[in-house]
Amino acid sequence: MNSFGIIYRISLFGESHGPAIGVVIDGCPPGLSLSPKDFTEDLSRRQSGSRGTTHRREPDLPEILSGVFEDFTTGAPITLITRNSDKISSDYDEFKNIPRPGHADFVSGFKYSGFSDMRGSGHFSGRLTWGLVAAGVVAKRIAAVAGISAKLISAGGSEDIEQALDKAIEANDTIGGIIECRVKNPPVALGEPFFYSFESALSHLIFSIPAIKGIEFGAGFAAAAMRGSAHNDPFMDSKGKTVTNNAGGINGGITNGNDIIFRVVVKPTSSTGTDQTTYNFKDGEMTTLKVKGRHDTCIALRIPVIVEAATAIAMADLMLMDRGIHGTRKY
Amino acid sequence: MNSFGIIYRISLFGESHGPAIGVVIDGCPPGLSLSPKDFTEDLSRRQSGSRGTTHRREPDLPEILSGVFEDFTTGAPITLITRNSDKISSDYDEFKNIPRPGHADFVSGFKYSGFSDMRGSGHFSGRLTWGLVAAGVVAKRIAAVAGISAKLISAGGSEDIEQALDKAIEANDTIGGIIECRVKNPPVALGEPFFYSFESALSHLIFSIPAIKGIEFGAGFAAAAMRGSAHNDPFMDSKGKTVTNNAGGINGGITNGNDIIFRVVVKPTSSTGTDQTTYNFKDGEMTTLKVKGRHDTCIALRIPVIVEAATAIAMADLMLMDRGIHGTRKY
Amino acid sequence: MNSFGIIYRISLFGESHGPAIGVVIDGCPPGLSLSPKDFTEDLSRRQSGSRGTTHRREPDLPEILSGVFEDFTTGAPITLITRNSDKISSDYDEFKNIPRPGHADFVSGFKYSGFSDMRGSGHFSGRLTWGLVAAGVVAKRIAAVAGISAKLISAGGSEDIEQALDKAIEANDTIGGIIECRVKNPPVALGEPFFYSFESALSHLIFSIPAIKGIEFGAGFAAAAMRGSAHNDPFMDSKGKTVTNNAGGINGGITNGNDIIFRVVVKPTSSTGTDQTTYNFKDGEMTTLKVKGRHDTCIALRIPVIVEAATAIAMADLMLMDRGIHGTRKY
Amino acid sequence: MNSFGIIYRISLFGESHGPAIGVVIDGCPPGLSLSPKDFTEDLSRRQSGSRGTTHRREPDLPEILSGVFEDFTTGAPITLITRNSDKISSDYDEFKNIPRPGHADFVSGFKYSGFSDMRGSGHFSGRLTWGLVAAGVVAKRIAAVAGISAKLISAGGSEDIEQALDKAIEANDTIGGIIECRVKNPPVALGEPFFYSFESALSHLIFSIPAIKGIEFGAGFAAAAMRGSAHNDPFMDSKGKTVTNNAGGINGGITNGNDIIFRVVVKPTSSTGTDQTTYNFKDGEMTTLKVKGRHDTCIALRIPVIVEAATAIAMADLMLMDRGIHGTRKY
Repeated sequence: MNSFGIIYRISLFGESHGPAIGVVIDGCPPGLSLSPKDFTEDLSRRQSGSRGTTHRREPDLPEILSGVFEDFTTGAPITLITRNSDKISSDYDEFKNIPRPGHADFVSGFKYSGFSDMRGSGHFSGRLTWGLVAAGVVAKRIAAVAGISAKLISAGGSEDIEQALDKAIEANDTIGGIIECRVKNPPVALGEPFFYSFESALSHLIFSIPAIKGIEFGAGFAAAAMRGSAHNDPFMDSKGKTVTNNAGGINGGITNGNDIIFRVVVKPTSSTGTDQTTYNFKDGEMTTLKVKGRHDTCIALRIPVIVEAATAIAMADLMLMDRGIHGTRKY
Repeated sequence: MNSFGIIYRISLFGESHGPAIGVVIDGCPPGLSLSPKDFTEDLSRRQSGSRGTTHRREPDLPEILSGVFEDFTTGAPITLITRNSDKISSDYDEFKNIPRPGHADFVSGFKYSGFSDMRGSGHFSGRLTWGLVAAGVVAKRIAAVAGISAKLISAGGSEDIEQALDKAIEANDTIGGIIECRVKNPPVALGEPFFYSFESALSHLIFSIPAIKGIEFGAGFAAAAMRGSAHNDPFMDSKGKTVTNNAGGINGGITNGNDIIFRVVVKPTSSTGTDQTTYNFKDGEMTTLKVKGRHDTCIALRIPVIVEAATAIAMADLMLMDRGIHGTRKY
Repeated sequence: MNSFGIIYRISLFGESHGPAIGVVIDGCPPGLSLSPKDFTEDLSRRQSGSRGTTHRREPDLPEILSGVFEDFTTGAPITLITRNSDKISSDYDEFKNIPRPGHADFVSGFKYSGFSDMRGSGHFSGRLTWGLVAAGVVAKRIAAVAGISAKLISAGGSEDIEQALDKAIEANDTIGGIIECRVKNPPVALGEPFFYSFESALSHLIFSIPAIKGIEFGAGFAAAAMRGSAHNDPFMDSKGKTVTNNAGGINGGITNGNDIIFRVVVKPTSSTGTDQTTYNFKDGEMTTLKVKGRHDTCIALRIPVIVEAATAIAMADLMLMDRGIHGTRKY
Repeated sequence: MNSFGIIYRISLFGESHGPAIGVVIDGCPPGLSLSPKDFTEDLSRRQSGSRGTTHRREPDLPEILSGVFEDFTTGAPITLITRNSDKISSDYDEFKNIPRPGHADFVSGFKYSGFSDMRGSGHFSGRLTWGLVAAGVVAKRIAAVAGISAKLISAGGSEDIEQALDKAIEANDTIGGIIECRVKNPPVALGEPFFYSFESALSHLIFSIPAIKGIEFGAGFAAAAMRGSAHNDPFMDSKGKTVTNNAGGINGGITNGNDIIFRVVVKPTSSTGTDQTTYNFKDGEMTTLKVKGRHDTCIALRIPVIVEAATAIAMADLMLMDRGIHGTRKY
């Protein structure tokens, strides 16, 4: 189940400490301009946030194995990989005995009967999002997929993100955050009833991103406390523009042409610098776990570009599968 | 795109004022006990909430067209339909000129080039959730899919739901609400990386339910303000039970055996008794729209059983597609 | 797995002696003219061949449950059903003990652990092809899907079909046949590498039709004895027309604009009037089975319209999923 | 559409003269023994037949990029690639003007609006079958997928294959052939009605192999000339063994436990040493085309292992998706 999409279909593969990670992008139209340098900006944004994330490194630029010829997409599947550099993997055996709280160690060990590669969280590593970002870069080349912008709007419960980071670093602890994403002037009528609503397709992709635990569209959870008369967005012109935008640009699961607005919550990084009392499955006793190594104080800083990519991928797929207004011209 | 599921695959069809609505359920194992009376309880819960919803009626019991023989599932697709009773449809033409704010009138008209059946919101009607609930009843017959319970925990921003209803009815307005769903003692290891995480599969289904605008798992949006040391759930026994449950029973997208907990937000019913100033697409001027007829003050009262159904369907599908721990015994 | 198609997706359901059989057609574009009388011709062709088939009856006309409004498709799923008339089902219990040679009795009993509805072959009945033909009628409304014509070209090894029928009826036995299907002037470029070639998509559907045991395109099996210099079809004009058509209109899995030509073989009807020596699974001994009732001498007479339907469905789906030449205009 | 499979899902990528070709295999169970040397035998068989094929070379051994850890499958997607060695590609530009008869040059140019990589037939190259064979090797590690054996039974219309090759080489021409594949003692009950019959799933995969133009199961096309009394296979023991096997081991689309038998026809290699009169799309005139380079006299010699791989892949997928007899034990 490492694929997603009906027409613009992506398949992710790889493990954190295996030879390489990557993505196959099927269903991309031919004739889109694409070269390795097009990936630099987004992959750099994913690679590093600010001082709240692990120290800045060069991004893992992709090798294009297929689907691009003389800097244009061919219509054949596009395969992008990047090699994993050597990492010290010796520490991970202990996580079979003492699975880290908040990580996938316990469930992956159980699900795959002990055969999963647990080094660096293996296939569950946040490193796998490299392929999402790369597939997002390609999706953004489709003209109708544009104007997507996500940013961290709060961290650790504070809108003053710098201050929140200071406090968390001082406590040798980690914090979560909330990311807001907007799409300016999206095409009208993206989304398919009943089971491929815009919200369904997007949330399916969004919850594949590790550490995300919630999503809300438009007014979101605040809508529970609103009256219908206030929540409804009255139309105000012949293009369908609305006075307010509590719907987040989506009615009945379909984009109405107003800006798409949604927010996601990122949990605090599971690997903290503090000691944790947890269970040792080998000894059958409670124990104290100290996760070594340098980790992100606030992983949410690196996630906006991944949210943008997921949005672009969902939009590309909905655009290409549509057989209604965007498609009727050709029958 | 009116189908969902990899193995336990459901297809919804019908329009609010057409001849019938229904669902085809493919991939159901043979040998499950099933008869029409099994549907009564859940369909009744969907049909009517309390005084905040439209007046109580008898539920639309299903006719079983296929897939069941002598009260047991056969392994062939199960088709369930219910007839739409006669309704007065004359009023709906005006919604082509003055699409109702908060409804799908505008987008469905646009997307389907004017060919969509707009009577009673047609294929976008909440009535379509009948098939979801029916498919949920079948999913719950699979032994591993059990212990699912959803309820409305607040309405109109108030935990005192009766009081909130009183006020809204008095104002001739509508209110939204928040529903919490819990699954007691779920199987460990449901969910497939990378793109069929438990959260992905479930949210895909949940956002197909009209009026839902957000979902959060475990601590959800509150996690943004938590420290990692507090959010992590330490293990405490050999079954993987955790001391806290901020993860909502899900790590790395896979169930860890602790209770699954999530909440969804339902927006206020779009059809309110109050006047709305909106755009008349025919006249090109702003106008006042008054939606006639009797409507739900709080549609959220009827949605818990639909949320349960979506959860059961997602769990059945994840259970049946698993090739890891639940599947390895047979190769 | 009772669904097929990526965009134009059909789901078949029903059993021979259950309440009804039918089909859900998802992904059909809006705005196609469609009314119940449009189904009469094709459903009549399926219902009855000539004297080699069971005696002529009125076709089972469809009830349209959804997806059509005021005689036009709406873009929502189209559901078509027809009721099964009362049939005497008492005889079928013995087939659990003595599964009929050539039928699905043995495998369906085994696969579904004894829970399958075996009356009239249940879900395996040729009656299920009603839904295929109905979905084919809808597919043929799409302008690019036209010019499809299939006919029986031999039966019982003889091109003189009437004579072959005479002999088989005299022997109280059954015969098979070969059907040839041609599509005149098809669109160029239908078919998707690598796994949705025109031949792949079509043969997938064709082998769902009971009794078909082989398919060949263009020169087909005769190509094994040809030289490459003779088998290659040289181009002769700027439209891609070829001098010969050994490829059956398909190169590299993609239509080249020349007529599509393929043949399928239909095995002799399994239910014959002659005695058969087979195994009694209850007694553990060989026994003589006599299948009662009136059966088709040559079921192949009724299959051309089903082959046409499968072709139309495959073409509609390939047309709608294409993102290359047919789709590039819109990005 | 470069993916196939419901649970055991493979995605092929690459072009003949691009950087690499490969395959992603998703849905493989964890715990299967797998190392690079396991691929040698099958990849060698694909690489070279006898003197009728291009001269013997070392096989392209795979690099395993993901999904295998310490020589066991992990349950995560398995990615296998092999690099394309340097090839002289200068000649291929002329095929845009004079598309080679029997090749995909014309349709790929048309479908992808001139953006396809036509060097060495690009994504349409027979070289892409490397990934099929590699995925077949993995599928064969699943215990229930065994006993598959395919061989060339005739070439150029002759059972004396050596003699047929002699004649063809002498004529500087090419020949086709017929391959028969048998599966000894397959599991009972593989195949899903209505649209994933064993024949449907297998033929879908088989027709993805370039140059195959027909498939028949059991008695196949010969069944058209048989009587039902002779074609039916009577059962003879409690395991379902039949006296004859005209069904090729499949009833109602489902394996009955008897040997699976099918044949495919391979057309003569399109690239022949003889001159061909065809159309020049640039000049608008008929011209003589001479395809340079060394080519396979009989490509069918290399295809048996690819047919085996397709069979293994289909069987693995049907095995893993089954929820009937193979799956009921666990609910």
